[in-house]
Amino acid sequence: MKSNHKILFLFILQLIAVNTLFSQNHPNLIMTKEGVENIRNSEDKAPIFEKVLEATKEEVDADIASGIHVPIPKDMAGGYTHERHKKNFFVLQKAGNLYQITGDEKYAVFIRDVFLEYAKMYPTLGLHPTMKSYATGKIFWQCLNDANWLVYCSQAYDAIYDFLTEKERENLEKNLFRPMADFISLENPKFYNRIHNHSTWGNAAVGMMGLAMNDEELIQRALYGLKDDGLDNTMLDNDGGFIKVEGQSKAGFFAQLDFSFSPDGHFTEGPYYLRYAMTPFLLFARSLANNRPDLKIYEYRDGILEKSIYSLLYESDAQGRFFPINDAQKGMSWNSREVVAAVDIAYLDFGNDPMLLSIAEKQGKVTLDEAGFKTASDLAKGLAKPFQHKSIAYSDGAEGKHGGLGILRADNADGEEICVLAKYAAHGMGHGHFDKLSYSLYDEDGEVIQDYGSARWVNIDQKGGGRYLPENHSYAKQSIAHNTLVINETSHYEGEVKAAEAHHPDQYFFDVSNPNVQVVSAKEIYAYPDAKMHRTLVLLKDENFRNPLLIDVFRVESEKENQYDLPTWFQGHLLSANFDYAAQTERLTTLGNGHGYQHLWEEASGKSSGDGNQVTWFTHLNDGGGQVRGKFFTLTTSSIPNDELIFARAGANDPNFNLRHDPTFIQRRKAKSTVFASAVESHGVYNPVSEIPLSPFSGLKSVEVLHDSKEYTVVQITHQTGKTWTLAIANQDASAKSKHKVNFGKEKLEWTGVFELIIDNK
Amino acid sequence: MKSNHKILFLFILQLIAVNTLFSQNHPNLIMTKEGVENIRNSEDKAPIFEKVLEATKEEVDADIASGIHVPIPKDMAGGYTHERHKKNFFVLQKAGNLYQITGDEKYAVFIRDVFLEYAKMYPTLGLHPTMKSYATGKIFWQCLNDANWLVYCSQAYDAIYDFLTEKERENLEKNLFRPMADFISLENPKFYNRIHNHSTWGNAAVGMMGLAMNDEELIQRALYGLKDDGLDNTMLDNDGGFIKVEGQSKAGFFAQLDFSFSPDGHFTEGPYYLRYAMTPFLLFARSLANNRPDLKIYEYRDGILEKSIYSLLYESDAQGRFFPINDAQKGMSWNSREVVAAVDIAYLDFGNDPMLLSIAEKQGKVTLDEAGFKTASDLAKGLAKPFQHKSIAYSDGAEGKHGGLGILRADNADGEEICVLAKYAAHGMGHGHFDKLSYSLYDEDGEVIQDYGSARWVNIDQKGGGRYLPENHSYAKQSIAHNTLVINETSHYEGEVKAAEAHHPDQYFFDVSNPNVQVVSAKEIYAYPDAKMHRTLVLLKDENFRNPLLIDVFRVESEKENQYDLPTWFQGHLLSANFDYAAQTERLTTLGNGHGYQHLWEEASGKSSGDGNQVTWFTHLNDGGGQVRGKFFTLTTSSIPNDELIFARAGANDPNFNLRHDPTFIQRRKAKSTVFASAVESHGVYNPVSEIPLSPFSGLKSVEVLHDSKEYTVVQITHQTGKTWTLAIANQDASAKSKHKVNFGKEKLEWTGVFELIIDNK
Repeated sequence: MKSNHKILFLFILQLIAVNTLFSQNHPNLIMTKEGVENIRNSEDKAPIFEKVLEATKEEVDADIASGIHVPIPKDMAGGYTHERHKKNFFVLQKAGNLYQITGDEKYAVFIRDVFLEYAKMYPTLGLHPTMKSYATGKIFWQCLNDANWLVYCSQAYDAIYDFLTEKERENLEKNLFRPMADFISLENPKFYNRIHNHSTWGNAAVGMMGLAMNDEELIQRALYGLKDDGLDNTMLDNDGGFIKVEGQSKAGFFAQLDFSFSPDGHFTEGPYYLRYAMTPFLLFARSLANNRPDLKIYEYRDGILEKSIYSLLYESDAQGRFFPINDAQKGMSWNSREVVAAVDIAYLDFGNDPMLLSIAEKQGKVTLDEAGFKTASDLAKGLAKPFQHKSIAYSDGAEGKHGGLGILRADNADGEEICVLAKYAAHGMGHGHFDKLSYSLYDEDGEVIQDYGSARWVNIDQKGGGRYLPENHSYAKQSIAHNTLVINETSHYEGEVKAAEAHHPDQYFFDVSNPNVQVVSAKEIYAYPDAKMHRTLVLLKDENFRNPLLIDVFRVESEKENQYDLPTWFQGHLLSANFDYAAQTERLTTLGNGHGYQHLWEEASGKSSGDGNQVTWFTHLNDGGGQVRGKFFTLTTSSIPNDELIFARAGANDPNFNLRHDPTFIQRRKAKSTVFASAVESHGVYNPVSEIPLSPFSGLKSVEVLHDSKEYTVVQITHQTGKTWTLAIANQDASAKSKHKVNFGKEKLEWTGVFELIIDNK
Repeated sequence: MKSNHKILFLFILQLIAVNTLFSQNHPNLIMTKEGVENIRNSEDKAPIFEKVLEATKEEVDADIASGIHVPIPKDMAGGYTHERHKKNFFVLQKAGNLYQITGDEKYAVFIRDVFLEYAKMYPTLGLHPTMKSYATGKIFWQCLNDANWLVYCSQAYDAIYDFLTEKERENLEKNLFRPMADFISLENPKFYNRIHNHSTWGNAAVGMMGLAMNDEELIQRALYGLKDDGLDNTMLDNDGGFIKVEGQSKAGFFAQLDFSFSPDGHFTEGPYYLRYAMTPFLLFARSLANNRPDLKIYEYRDGILEKSIYSLLYESDAQGRFFPINDAQKGMSWNSREVVAAVDIAYLDFGNDPMLLSIAEKQGKVTLDEAGFKTASDLAKGLAKPFQHKSIAYSDGAEGKHGGLGILRADNADGEEICVLAKYAAHGMGHGHFDKLSYSLYDEDGEVIQDYGSARWVNIDQKGGGRYLPENHSYAKQSIAHNTLVINETSHYEGEVKAAEAHHPDQYFFDVSNPNVQVVSAKEIYAYPDAKMHRTLVLLKDENFRNPLLIDVFRVESEKENQYDLPTWFQGHLLSANFDYAAQTERLTTLGNGHGYQHLWEEASGKSSGDGNQVTWFTHLNDGGGQVRGKFFTLTTSSIPNDELIFARAGANDPNFNLRHDPTFIQRRKAKSTVFASAVESHGVYNPVSEIPLSPFSGLKSVEVLHDSKEYTVVQITHQTGKTWTLAIANQDASAKSKHKVNFGKEKLEWTGVFELIIDNK
């Protein structure tokens, strides 16, 4: 009782403070009175801002001219009512900014009139008729989209707050805004009270509208969540994720900040979802910074919001496309509107980092507010510096103890990048994939060894209404769809989310101190009951290779004989292999019956002599404007006699043509403890106009495992010239100081530290 | 005897004239003394020329610095000796230009020294050890490449002719140039004496070296070929083409000009090969124009060379990529070095067409001679005008009576093009495909409905040494690999070149007088013994469609019941179909056993209710710089009950992974005479960054055949709005003046001329 009294007392104090200091001072969310004055009166040139202003006027004016469209909700994503209501909230937010910047009242009138239509309709609505979501909305098929609406419309409301009569405000707040905020929170705790990007949208929606309405109850609900949500830890969302994580008692915006990110800003669902979640985080945070400086929201958790923005930017390829780990649609990039907003707010509020201006320049867009204006005008002043991707390790889990991501990057002589992403992160909740210790490889142009991403065509109605497709679960999430080891044709954790969520791989070591030999190493010991997996990836820069070389050492320890499959999802067309294989020419069958194998056609297979194998492929790249060029890549692997070498392709058991028909090469071995060592080289280019291939053949002769034991693994890479690189790894001692010695055959190696690369220029 | 004396007399007269007027006046082939003076002394700015000059110096200097490399010939294309000798002739030609332009003797010294090495080696060479060509070369695996060498090296020789001592010239001519010219002509009549692009290279090689050496015997041999070649008309080349066409008695360069082109400049093998053949045509022609103005080579056949350059430019998509008809590698475009040379020579010698300058600007390159200098300096003067593709029909055959190509082009509101290529040309000799009445469809970005091109990876050693692959014959040439009708699973002319060469389709009519309703129509009556085929393609521009709409009416007449297959090789990923189909989910089998069907996996099939069908697909486009966007397309077809609707994919019976795994939709019908009517609409776009689809659904409701008889076919297209377009075609009377009347059901149509399109805005 005592503590409750205390909370109530503090609450009343806060209410008084807030009402005194901040009420009737609109706009005060993303736009501020001062910011608007600054834009209106500045003499700085800001060409991109001007361009966006003109384009936005044109867009909003056209929409105003088309009339008011507030249809009764009916359709799934992609359908008319969904797309129209979505368009409405974007247009209303823009109209609010235009009203503030230009002072033209037609924008305020339009917003008011649209809101009044919504206020008439909203009280008549039951749940959306689709009923396909774990949390069905009213305006949209899912609460998530209703929350989107409220995040954007709170800004529009804020912009015209002073323009409206008190009666109009009362009407809107009573019939529309407050009921909507209550609906997505009180009436949908399983949507609202999670640690999840959906809930962040919910929290921000309730909180931003609370700030706009000066409704302290909503603000508190946004910051701290619902007290009693009645949720249990067996409930699942549409993606198969758990609603409630065991032991998780906090909710609301602060809890999102506490639990959504690792201490260094990594978002467990990955950058595609962080990009989406970033909007409510930043918009609500900026709204709080403007209204509640006492909360010091930007300093919270040692500046977690700023760190998260940089993690978003770093978890992308050289072109700024996000690594498509977990459930992600490919092609999403720095150019998304969410990142435009994040970059502009970060530039304004987090110390004017000039590297951010170069991203803004590539985006060619800014937000129509103070942050965008500042960004555009500083860009025009020539303050931009090139954005530098860098090698970096991100931890995962709220405390940074649930594995992570290791990103290795190195340039070739032309400044073109090779980038390896090692994934040893936590499962990633409902959007996680069973891809422990997987990697993907990128070059300056994009994917070389791909991650499939999700089986989903976002917002494309013809493909399951634009939602996740059945093949997302049955294929895209399964281990075999990733570049990692699959044992006995069974996915990691047998494909069970709950088991996968309970564990995680661990980083063994990460060392990028030598830019020519960058290494990341991680272990996963829970994915299979009887096997421990350990992968080490090296990015080697050496004059003998046109581009940095990837070396991969995948060690598995087991006392049982198992079937090991290590797929390499190369992007391109198979050119040649140095082993005999028999192709399935007259009929194709599936490679297996479950765990994603049922979605693979087995196209060809051969046996290894044990002398190591090479597979060369070719990729076409479109340079835009109709110009095409090609590249040559070679995978060189170690092998033992009778390793099975399989070429397969996705697309089986796909009755609705939902999957891409991508190729893979699978090295299959029956063994107990063993090592798969390999290297991937980007060695050549081709121009179909000159028709001249440059370096179409690999420079590598072989990759061999010289020694393997519980303690040590030694792998040797041999170049056609005879030069060798010998990589020695201490498997059980990651100390930088320990001394190691290993004998094999007539050879002896001694070194200090967890690994050593010995170069022999024969 | 009498006439032989006369020829000898004329020959001696010519020799005297030539020796008097033109000897010792080097350079005189592509470069001229006057042209060189002009470049050296001009005060015009020519930035592209300067850029090429600097880049060429850098390239040639680096090669000079690397030493002289004249290895004993050994390798196939892609291998070291092949690529090195190829590099040599390019570098030597460039060094010659540099010597003339800069006057720096190091270039002359280099050319001399390399030639002297060749002169030492050449007399020791037997045939190239590969022995894989119908006409094996000495320096390369085929005479063709030896001829390439001579065409380029004749220019280098010409450039340093005056620099060399008489003794050096004697050595080179006696041991290298003359023996090489004799080898590729006298000793290889089956290479030299054909009407074929290979022979054009041979003729130019012999003729240009003849001009450089002032060797009249070679010149005459180049212009008029070998008298007695001992060839018969059963011999085949490596591509399965006939060496000697029946009734063909002429040979040499004039014969190539007479028989390689239709009167309007179309090249029967298509633009990919014309681009390749263009170099010897133009280089030898310019050499003749400079040396033998009496031959009036540019005026020959009413200016056939100029016409051929424009046919090359017009037979390309909006981005300047050549239509990949017949044996062509995709991606070849205006940017090739051959087209750079053609555009520059055409600009200099054929009236300074300012549209050519805009192509030169896109190429960003010019030749390092007078033509390139003129082009670059006029470009710098701002004289360029945009190149305008246009709708045009090309006839085929030397007399223009062997069918042809019909190209329809129309723009959307944003100036983006839709282009239909209708192919009703002659077979195209050894490089021809069995694709009578096929079409392909392009938009501003490239292929929408594709032509496969050839099964070949040019110069990529791993794929059959870079030569044509077995699948080129068994798949790429077969009818089912094209967008045309296949009867009873048998290719046109049963896949026999000789039969196909003996006939050709005929243009029925071509009318582009109304830019909103452009039509091409053609018939093929010999491809099948018991069936006559007639296809009409309409490109319709209408405010109801975002992009011009393709309407396709394929009529077949037969008294027998046949199985008709009409494939549509859509580029992209199947999104949806409006009919039920069953996919082969657990195993795939081939669609048939021969004529290309053995290379198709049958992925799914369904039956039509007869109410017409729609198939929607999605294409990803790479805009360069990592940015991607998508487009939506829909094919709407007429159907009759029990039409089988098949989705298939190339890639079966492909033991070496030579084929692309492209998808197709096949409409299969069992009938006697019948009509397949359809429309292809480009209706929507998608941006994976905004994730917003615009117009993902087709605007069309149906395509129906209202009437069909021997005399008339009437097809109706219906929009979702109810608007209809009714197309009436007179099948047996192409006159523009005839009056027609047709009754069907309760309807009656009357019109004048071969076709009428009636629009009803319901």
